[in-house]
Amino acid sequence: MSTRVATSQRHWPKLLTPGPITTSVGVKASMQFDSGSRDSAFIELTASLRHRLADLVDPTGGFTCVPMQGSGTFSVEAMVTSLLGPDDHLLVCANGTYGSRIEAIAQMAGIAHTTLASPESGPTPLDELDKALEGDGTVSHVAIVHCETTSGVLNPLDDVCDVASRHGARVLVDAMGTFGGIPFTPAANVDAVAASANKCLQGVPGLGFVLARPEALTRAADFPVHSLSLDLVGQWRGLEANGQFRFTPPTHVMWALGTALDELEAEGGPAGRYQRYRTNHLVLTDGMTRLGYRMLVDPGHQSPIIATFLSPTHADWDFRTFYEALVARGFAIYPSKLTEAETFRIGCIGDVDGDDMASVVTHIEEITVASTTAEPANH
Amino acid sequence: MSTRVATSQRHWPKLLTPGPITTSVGVKASMQFDSGSRDSAFIELTASLRHRLADLVDPTGGFTCVPMQGSGTFSVEAMVTSLLGPDDHLLVCANGTYGSRIEAIAQMAGIAHTTLASPESGPTPLDELDKALEGDGTVSHVAIVHCETTSGVLNPLDDVCDVASRHGARVLVDAMGTFGGIPFTPAANVDAVAASANKCLQGVPGLGFVLARPEALTRAADFPVHSLSLDLVGQWRGLEANGQFRFTPPTHVMWALGTALDELEAEGGPAGRYQRYRTNHLVLTDGMTRLGYRMLVDPGHQSPIIATFLSPTHADWDFRTFYEALVARGFAIYPSKLTEAETFRIGCIGDVDGDDMASVVTHIEEITVASTTAEPANH
Repeated sequence: MSTRVATSQRHWPKLLTPGPITTSVGVKASMQFDSGSRDSAFIELTASLRHRLADLVDPTGGFTCVPMQGSGTFSVEAMVTSLLGPDDHLLVCANGTYGSRIEAIAQMAGIAHTTLASPESGPTPLDELDKALEGDGTVSHVAIVHCETTSGVLNPLDDVCDVASRHGARVLVDAMGTFGGIPFTPAANVDAVAASANKCLQGVPGLGFVLARPEALTRAADFPVHSLSLDLVGQWRGLEANGQFRFTPPTHVMWALGTALDELEAEGGPAGRYQRYRTNHLVLTDGMTRLGYRMLVDPGHQSPIIATFLSPTHADWDFRTFYEALVARGFAIYPSKLTEAETFRIGCIGDVDGDDMASVVTHIEEITVASTTAEPANH
Repeated sequence: MSTRVATSQRHWPKLLTPGPITTSVGVKASMQFDSGSRDSAFIELTASLRHRLADLVDPTGGFTCVPMQGSGTFSVEAMVTSLLGPDDHLLVCANGTYGSRIEAIAQMAGIAHTTLASPESGPTPLDELDKALEGDGTVSHVAIVHCETTSGVLNPLDDVCDVASRHGARVLVDAMGTFGGIPFTPAANVDAVAASANKCLQGVPGLGFVLARPEALTRAADFPVHSLSLDLVGQWRGLEANGQFRFTPPTHVMWALGTALDELEAEGGPAGRYQRYRTNHLVLTDGMTRLGYRMLVDPGHQSPIIATFLSPTHADWDFRTFYEALVARGFAIYPSKLTEAETFRIGCIGDVDGDDMASVVTHIEEITVASTTAEPANH
């Protein structure tokens, strides 16, 4: 198959997913040149990205940014396996796929860990977290996923940090789904935050990063290293030494992220972007509710990042058919990762606005009416 | 710093490095749309890339392609740590940075290994390899770097496989520097070959891959997994199960690779590309020899991928000044990684041709004449 033919003949839908998302024309235009990874312009870009990302989480300079090649999971793995030592004990809050993934990472790396599993449809229960930490005095770190895009649940980050703090535990945050789109100020016991370029920052996929307190990296300096590539301390030291990556960075992806950060700034930073995402979310959920769709997550725990809708129960409804019909009309939504209920997901992040969300609701209405005989979706 | 201002004001030099390299306008143009990673068009692209890359190493279908997010090193680490089990023993041929990197990977993963170190300026000595395998009957695998871009030395891949075969050892190949640019047919005892998108394939950085015999992956199915992200068997199983990556793939980088493979095909495959690289190399080395520069590596062991030149010995020569003067004239070369000698490197790969190489020689002549008083470079 010739790739050129395949791409030029295709009409590309807008992506209403938890990422990769739709990026702006400007972000994509930033990938139209090749730069050397050891060239001064690229070294300046790297320094600028590190500085700007660290500033987003803490403008007072409490964190340093360690970018990491690969998907967001690579950064989460680098964070968890590099910052915990042989005497540490991780408590993983797992209310979805991404929490469970942290558990799998700890398992494979041989890191002592305990999992606090709770239902996918709600947030991590604070009372159970408190009890778990009370019951086991050895827990040194708590890992929490800010927004579980499995469901769209927003976990109560500050409260989790409070509970952890009362038991003297540090916190590692997987902020993949929220970073840049939901403003937050890390509590004093947050050691590190992992995120990636291609979610709310609206860059393209290929780069993640860990925002870590230098003290946490220094503390980990002599811990056994599990992986050369994912060694966060090694990556940090390399960047600090000469401003360069140890191994080839995704140069084009990084220039795109630079432009994405310009655009985030122009939108008023994470606070400004949050307003647009909230609008996207409201237009979507109001419209879907009007069509008779019900949401999985209680509104009080629902993030504006992505919404999970219960699938219609009538016999002829099929996700793949529904999905392809929407793609033909210019929108790609997302399948479920839930084990608890038959659902589908619609993302509200990326270079999309309220008009796009109104448009997707209209298309869903038309598709639903065409495929059923006057029966609203799941009444 | 605004990234947009920084990029638009910059004149981008052609990259004469071991990668990232200069890519074509068409390759970069393939990154001008956003595709969902679970969308059918992207799943087709993934299948097509896997098939085409596996075909390049063995058109009879002996290998399967497992793409891996990140730099080439991530793929080498995935290969080495996933395909060796607790009872295996790796002999690493190390005559440069990349061989030593494999040693570091084995070390961190706790894989039993022995290193056969030899000088950076020459190939892995076959007699010493034979002796090492003879002396230790437990070696199950030999790791060899096809082209050590540290120096430009081409290791004798077929001979290494022969020697390994005589001792019943399998071979893992790091073909980062050569894949797509120097044709080779893996011997029967080659279990896997690791490479990346952004060297001789002339794609952009962000994706590597391992071409592995399915038998080698199956043999490793129950080995302990060192890393979730770099688990080659897990990645393979995921792709085989539903055609999708387990974790977000670098979608734009992959579309670029599709176009890069179209262009490789149009050039006559690796054999055709090899001819252009050989011409590039000859124009460069003839010109540099005429200017009085001497090469580190004996012509018999020199690859056409990259050439290492001894730095001029006169007192006022400074690599950084030389480098910046060349960048101002439109070419970025590469610093040395050698510990043995004062050198610099000029790459011959990427979307560059004999005219570019002639041009860089002319610029070097002019810079050299301007910076010294009529003294040829290192006479």
